Amino acid sequence: MNTEKLVSEIKRKQSFLCIGLDVDLSKIPAHLLELSSPIFEFNKAIIDATHHLCVAYKPNIAFYEAYGLEGWKALKLTIDYLNTNYPEIFTIADAKRGDIGNTSSMYAIAFFEDLGFDSITTAPYMGKDSIEPFLAFEDKHTILLALTSNPGAFDFQTLESNSKPFYQSVLETSKTWNNSKNLMYVVGATKAEFFKSIREIIPDHFLLVPGIGAQGGSLEDVCKYGLNSNIGLLINSSRAIIYASKTKDFAAHAAQKAKDLQQQMKAILVKNKT
Amino acid sequence: MNTEKLVSEIKRKQSFLCIGLDVDLSKIPAHLLELSSPIFEFNKAIIDATHHLCVAYKPNIAFYEAYGLEGWKALKLTIDYLNTNYPEIFTIADAKRGDIGNTSSMYAIAFFEDLGFDSITTAPYMGKDSIEPFLAFEDKHTILLALTSNPGAFDFQTLESNSKPFYQSVLETSKTWNNSKNLMYVVGATKAEFFKSIREIIPDHFLLVPGIGAQGGSLEDVCKYGLNSNIGLLINSSRAIIYASKTKDFAAHAAQKAKDLQQQMKAILVKNKT
Repeated sequence: MNTEKLVSEIKRKQSFLCIGLDVDLSKIPAHLLELSSPIFEFNKAIIDATHHLCVAYKPNIAFYEAYGLEGWKALKLTIDYLNTNYPEIFTIADAKRGDIGNTSSMYAIAFFEDLGFDSITTAPYMGKDSIEPFLAFEDKHTILLALTSNPGAFDFQTLESNSKPFYQSVLETSKTWNNSKNLMYVVGATKAEFFKSIREIIPDHFLLVPGIGAQGGSLEDVCKYGLNSNIGLLINSSRAIIYASKTKDFAAHAAQKAKDLQQQMKAILVKNKT
Repeated sequence: MNTEKLVSEIKRKQSFLCIGLDVDLSKIPAHLLELSSPIFEFNKAIIDATHHLCVAYKPNIAFYEAYGLEGWKALKLTIDYLNTNYPEIFTIADAKRGDIGNTSSMYAIAFFEDLGFDSITTAPYMGKDSIEPFLAFEDKHTILLALTSNPGAFDFQTLESNSKPFYQSVLETSKTWNNSKNLMYVVGATKAEFFKSIREIIPDHFLLVPGIGAQGGSLEDVCKYGLNSNIGLLINSSRAIIYASKTKDFAAHAAQKAKDLQQQMKAILVKNKT
């Protein structure tokens, strides 16, 4: 999916919500555990109940790999279900991959071609030749870690180098890579005070923003400095939505939580005349 | 597997060779493609022919994920085959994972528990809480990217911060993390001139060294500065060994290439009286 289509879906739905599908079998309703693929059935119910309130879904691949072959099957069923039934949805493989060039090419094949995701998250540590193989795919996006939402972000990402924090070097250098128009960036909602300087370096790129809700980030603060003329934000919420309830009507509870966020987003878009 | 057992195997076999099992279906002998799991059959033949010449195998997970469900099945068959038939072998999931804490825990479960690897490679960008969930596993090793063998290593890893290159901050900071005794580090063979300063920071930890052979690194140079009193090196070779030949006796050719390296390692160990 290209950026124009994503922006038009955000405007149509008045939502820039991404829902994280991080399925932990110990947290889903018990009645699903009797089905042949509980993970997929959970995702399917969440997707059917929330697809009109969000523009993106983001399975975190760790939660599927932890269940081995069954997990990988559930991931495949989930992305196939999304691509078949909701092709207007932007899909994100939250995988945080990155390796030497020929190996990154194999990951790109895995997630863009074999599974058919629209985008993948990647880690910058190994530099240009570890990311360009992902960027080579047309109408696919590569979402590079910049400033993450976890406490460990302050271990290395904010170290000063050449009088600026390291994550700013990641932003500036990555802009020079081939097909950098296909880049988006991960910036944590818990770092709202950093959005202004980030937008000075990358005014046009989309930011994928985790950390609203369970991790304590504020939607208002993120939008104040993060929105651009193309909206330019995907706000992710995972646990607060998908685990809203463990009852049989869990999907309706999830939809209510998603709607609360969508309504807040709509108000922000109206206020900003977007 | 604990470090003592690994060191005793290195001394017994007079080898610190790790063989990378990065299987690309376009590069393996044609007769294998007719079998039900060509990737596993290829690995099995390579393992049976080389296990006495090396102490570790390292499947790069990208090469399995690129083949979807079949790839994941082949990975499972390969690690099960190793753990059942050659429990003295140290197994490395070359996965370069790293995510927020609860997600890294899921990756640790995937690779240490579900698949049963002895170790996994990880990326440092997200800091302490992204790596400690791996370090919490007893007798498992977490192999952190420090200075990699690819050209992109110079994009970020060697940026100066507090008068030292960034990868040295990674080494110094990671030493302070809980259970840091379970750390090993990836240092590329193409960076032999850096080994001396690296050994000043981490004299005791094992280094996993890719980049010998196809990427141009020198075994002699790496050993000159990298060996410690516990040997402390695992030298990886992938393509130069496993793709030595595409004929029906490919495994014998692979064994010959592995033996060449093992003999060089033996000579170095004898010379160093290890």
